[in-house]
Amino acid sequence: MNKLTIIKLGGKVIDNPAELEAVLQAFAGISGRKLLVHGGGSLASRIETTMGLIPEMVEGRRVTSKASLDVVTMVYAGLINKNMVAGLQANGVNALGLSGADGNIIRTKKRSPKPIDFGYVGDVDKVNAGLLDRLLDLGLVPVISAITHDGKGQLLNTNADTMAAEIAMALATSNEVELDFTFEKPGVLDGHGQVIPTIDPEMFKQLKEARVIVDGMIPKLTNAFAAIAAGVKSVKLVSSDYLLDASIPHTKVIQS
Amino acid sequence: MNKLTIIKLGGKVIDNPAELEAVLQAFAGISGRKLLVHGGGSLASRIETTMGLIPEMVEGRRVTSKASLDVVTMVYAGLINKNMVAGLQANGVNALGLSGADGNIIRTKKRSPKPIDFGYVGDVDKVNAGLLDRLLDLGLVPVISAITHDGKGQLLNTNADTMAAEIAMALATSNEVELDFTFEKPGVLDGHGQVIPTIDPEMFKQLKEARVIVDGMIPKLTNAFAAIAAGVKSVKLVSSDYLLDASIPHTKVIQS
Repeated sequence: MNKLTIIKLGGKVIDNPAELEAVLQAFAGISGRKLLVHGGGSLASRIETTMGLIPEMVEGRRVTSKASLDVVTMVYAGLINKNMVAGLQANGVNALGLSGADGNIIRTKKRSPKPIDFGYVGDVDKVNAGLLDRLLDLGLVPVISAITHDGKGQLLNTNADTMAAEIAMALATSNEVELDFTFEKPGVLDGHGQVIPTIDPEMFKQLKEARVIVDGMIPKLTNAFAAIAAGVKSVKLVSSDYLLDASIPHTKVIQS
Repeated sequence: MNKLTIIKLGGKVIDNPAELEAVLQAFAGISGRKLLVHGGGSLASRIETTMGLIPEMVEGRRVTSKASLDVVTMVYAGLINKNMVAGLQANGVNALGLSGADGNIIRTKKRSPKPIDFGYVGDVDKVNAGLLDRLLDLGLVPVISAITHDGKGQLLNTNADTMAAEIAMALATSNEVELDFTFEKPGVLDGHGQVIPTIDPEMFKQLKEARVIVDGMIPKLTNAFAAIAAGVKSVKLVSSDYLLDASIPHTKVIQS
């Protein structure tokens, strides 16, 4: 099987041109088949503000209104995606920017408006692994933004971590997949702020109960464990600096 | 050789959801290999205004500042491109949205700042016809926005008519290409406002001299004649209604 590296690029690196350039250069240096999944950093919120839109939150989570969907489509699938593709091309990578609608790569279902209506948000229904493999066969490097479609003409905002995990799982039957989630921190932190080198489902359960792992780290790790359980060969939580220096502390997600 | 239909979609149809839906349905009905090139209608200007940007014009032509490039990248390659792709997917077309940076499909050179500095505008340098053919072989339908790159990491705004003509010319060696430019009018109009059914280079020259063909029609027809001279099998100037009803008046561009 082919080795395939999937990087979910998240956190502030997307908002910092110099850091992003360094990360894209490091990504260019990864050998073998590779694929990038990215969110949007804080740029979408800033552009919403410029356009006079007021972000709507329910229970601390963002609601994607129609106007907000237009902005994230513009920013994620347009501005960020195309600048990343151009940056990778300049580094000798034949990047191909995609949303989930392109080539029907990721079809989602609009989330039920009950109990909470999050608006135009989609949960992953199906990944077109066959086409992704054909594109990789052509030597292309997919750069996938967190915008998907429902197959009926509606674009939907989708969690980039979940997308990366679902893509990794779908491609794990035909590739030896390594999946790295990059984010603000160097990895999962214990109660003393130290990076946990390896975490298994039992430790995850205990740290959730002890409220050491809270908030956004819970769905991120849930995605990571789903990926490793579904045959993804390696799953890690790392800072984007890890792409520049693999010797720095990071967390490896293991099955048991 | 494979038959390949290339449609340059222009004019107000992009700003009108109901009209656009009808045109995408008609496009879905075209048999064989096909490809769409689109500009941005007036949406980019409206969003620039919302964001407090003031469009800069020199000698009646738009200057693409850095801020303006960001907006056209968001609107053309993001909002319009992804909604068109989702609309085509809903009509059973496996559309793949691309900018010129994606897969290095279209590399351009930034236009010289002399005599007039138009800013971040690129003129077509090279079309990656090989990759476009491979994508068409996979049954994909490229939907290409008028944003390109210089290969050094810089995105550039590019004329969509020129892009459509250059793509048609590059693919004409491996495909039997039909190229239709859709725009506001049903075709090239004579001095009495009637559609000219066929136009050749000599007639073009005379109508320019008589100032019947003026302004934006000159580069559009120049692109059309370049395409037909370079081996594109059929080139027409049509209204988007022509896609719904091929019996309505339109202009065929011929070599002599």
